[in-house]
Amino acid sequence: MDDRLKEEFRAAAGGQAIDPASSPADAERYLTDWRGTKTGAASLILRPGTTSEVADVVRLAAREGVPLVPQGGNSGLVGGSVPEGDGTAVLLSLERMNEIQLVDAEGATARVQAGVILQTLHEAAAESQLMFPLSLGAKGSATIGGLISTNAGGTQVLRYGAMRAQVLGLEAVLAGGNVLNQLAPLRKDNTGYDLKQLLIGAEGTLGIVTRASLRLLPAPAETATALVGLSSPAAALQLLARLQAATGGQVDSFELIPRIAVDLVTAHVDNTRDPLAAGHAWYVLAELTGTGAEGTQRGLLETALAAAIEDGLAADAVLAGSGREREELWRLRETIAEAERADGLAIKHDISVPVSDMPRFVTEVGAEIERRWPGTSMIAFGHLGDGNIHFNVRSTDALDRDDLIALRPEITGFVYEQIAAAGGSISAEHGIGTLKAEALARLGDPGKLAAMRAVKRALDPHGIMNPGKVFA
Amino acid sequence: MDDRLKEEFRAAAGGQAIDPASSPADAERYLTDWRGTKTGAASLILRPGTTSEVADVVRLAAREGVPLVPQGGNSGLVGGSVPEGDGTAVLLSLERMNEIQLVDAEGATARVQAGVILQTLHEAAAESQLMFPLSLGAKGSATIGGLISTNAGGTQVLRYGAMRAQVLGLEAVLAGGNVLNQLAPLRKDNTGYDLKQLLIGAEGTLGIVTRASLRLLPAPAETATALVGLSSPAAALQLLARLQAATGGQVDSFELIPRIAVDLVTAHVDNTRDPLAAGHAWYVLAELTGTGAEGTQRGLLETALAAAIEDGLAADAVLAGSGREREELWRLRETIAEAERADGLAIKHDISVPVSDMPRFVTEVGAEIERRWPGTSMIAFGHLGDGNIHFNVRSTDALDRDDLIALRPEITGFVYEQIAAAGGSISAEHGIGTLKAEALARLGDPGKLAAMRAVKRALDPHGIMNPGKVFA
Repeated sequence: MDDRLKEEFRAAAGGQAIDPASSPADAERYLTDWRGTKTGAASLILRPGTTSEVADVVRLAAREGVPLVPQGGNSGLVGGSVPEGDGTAVLLSLERMNEIQLVDAEGATARVQAGVILQTLHEAAAESQLMFPLSLGAKGSATIGGLISTNAGGTQVLRYGAMRAQVLGLEAVLAGGNVLNQLAPLRKDNTGYDLKQLLIGAEGTLGIVTRASLRLLPAPAETATALVGLSSPAAALQLLARLQAATGGQVDSFELIPRIAVDLVTAHVDNTRDPLAAGHAWYVLAELTGTGAEGTQRGLLETALAAAIEDGLAADAVLAGSGREREELWRLRETIAEAERADGLAIKHDISVPVSDMPRFVTEVGAEIERRWPGTSMIAFGHLGDGNIHFNVRSTDALDRDDLIALRPEITGFVYEQIAAAGGSISAEHGIGTLKAEALARLGDPGKLAAMRAVKRALDPHGIMNPGKVFA
Repeated sequence: MDDRLKEEFRAAAGGQAIDPASSPADAERYLTDWRGTKTGAASLILRPGTTSEVADVVRLAAREGVPLVPQGGNSGLVGGSVPEGDGTAVLLSLERMNEIQLVDAEGATARVQAGVILQTLHEAAAESQLMFPLSLGAKGSATIGGLISTNAGGTQVLRYGAMRAQVLGLEAVLAGGNVLNQLAPLRKDNTGYDLKQLLIGAEGTLGIVTRASLRLLPAPAETATALVGLSSPAAALQLLARLQAATGGQVDSFELIPRIAVDLVTAHVDNTRDPLAAGHAWYVLAELTGTGAEGTQRGLLETALAAAIEDGLAADAVLAGSGREREELWRLRETIAEAERADGLAIKHDISVPVSDMPRFVTEVGAEIERRWPGTSMIAFGHLGDGNIHFNVRSTDALDRDDLIALRPEITGFVYEQIAAAGGSISAEHGIGTLKAEALARLGDPGKLAAMRAVKRALDPHGIMNPGKVFA
């Protein structure tokens, strides 16, 4: 890109630009992804501050045929937020668009720019005794625009849905520089195609999300949390159905944890312990929230768990008696990835199947993998209530790290085959990015892929929006 | 259409066809809309029984360039389900595709064909102690396919969302005859564009919904219902915020009813009465559902309403003490449209604005209409919690019916102008169909309209899917 064009881009972005050629150190954090495994190149990094600056940049890029890569917190896991290709792309960071423009306590909505960090929104909602009902590990870096563009999930999807369910309104700049204005926080609007739904989860390949109107909810008065020991994923699913019926669907989180994960966490992570007296084959971390008289949620959970133990559905359970104890229980779940890393290599899969099929999938497909590839060991954990499991394959002492790496294509191929047979998804939470683009092209429903390509061509005819992502 | 082609269509639809030319009496109910105000013409009415028959019909229509008009229960309110144009269209009724293929009690999902009637699904869910959380007046005739294609709302949107929120999976036949298969009931799936979202609310202009996987919820153990008398919509909205906070968001319905509606209902509808001792300017019908010990919901509602009366936010309230009393309260709300019709003509608007702006809109815009057009009288009622109000304009004795009809364009133009200024929607629930196509073209966001046209061209390049609907 010549200097004249760089200057034009810089001016369009309100003067906020970093040139990787002259400032490589400043550019690095934009060009290397969170996992540190992928570094891309860009001719320029722009940091616009308003929707109209974004629109100016997009119009210029369209005129010049320059690819654009939008970026939020750069904490995605599938390579979607760093540039592919030869370095001609312009990276468009939304980080300066970090204004919470409105918290409407009466309407229970917030209007934010795309670069607002999730945790900042949590804090703003809390000031009005409200909550934004989506949270995940990267909440200190993930931005609203990125969360929307990847339709992010997290630990409360069971109760409140993924990011799509939180978006009441959206503003985006489309490939030609047109602004799609569906920003009004309407709970109901049936005036033609709901195009914002198309932008949600499109990973920046159809347009750049610039602002959103989000729903907020009353902050719950009470949280009740328990760790339950039980014999199988099937028992866990039955327990979930009971809890949902007993509470009228107030289960926020229902996380499945295998024995091996508890062993790895307690071995590798400081200040962790299994609070149940005996070891169990499987564990569930269950959390309810709600209101009513003090102790209502705890009482509901206690009664339901006592009945489950009485009936032989669960073996043992412990309820958190304080905020600190709750954190301890969550620490067992939230440090599994860290413990996995400390233990060695794992081939990771972020999959979903219909909820009622999950026990079979975890048990049978897991056993089949260990049988087919001796020396492998499954670690399957996560959001059982969403039908979404991190279905990871480790090596034991009987299998070298390098041998496991060599088996990756075979093993992942087998997992995806089983997913396809179960009508499941090869990316439940993380999206496609570049990491799964080839797999999607190979395994996706042909009718859906054809329609996706048609929509992409229609809204981005010159292919300048985040090229190389989603589509192989 | 010549006989040879008719025969080919009939064969594609499994032999199930009605020819309006030879069987006009049989054809009538398909060609006249529910309101009885619009009759269209079709060269043939087909009643396929399977997705593959629908695909065969669509491929044939694409080959021959024949327009297709899909139809569910034909109970829409904006003319979307009867043919426009010169009578060359083929009407595709989904009514024979009425099979509930699966109720998965453990996974809390149902898989149904598009022609299943809403009430039938309610009954099937109840047999498994579950519920399908969407209901509306036309539940005895509206079909799942139609509800999806119009993203229908109803009386529980506040708690459970509109139809979009209930759809976990979708199967549709696109314009070329390709089948879009996103039918698996996945709670999480981030593999490329979520195209089913585009079909939801597209009113059959992008494809024909053939099957759906829907979420079910535990049937609530207890329902508590109250009618509250208060002084203004602003007080009603404050009461809603209190109830939501007190119950942790368990308010299913929160319906605003003006004095005039109660007067019309009690005057025109048998077996109705105002159960509150004194008359009030405004009423709210509020309903909570949930679980817990017997009387929990009633207790929550009673306590919150007593505090509201104590604080002067509400003037009076009555709680339903039995199922019969609950029905009586709902009858006051559900017969408003009937009472309006009995009373005379009303110019109807199905609008939404941001929830917190609703009190201002109802009060100020309503007063302005009565001031500008002497002899008119507002009747604004409906889903306050969704920001969605039926904002209707009646004539009083001081204004003839014909004069009101003559004023319709002016008055509706003014309402839509005010809606645009408030960032609201000119069709909150009912869709666009033919009735509002011109208004959408004139008032819609230009960026959105351009993108809608691009998507329509991309997925239906020959314009055979429900032509004349949504787009003017």
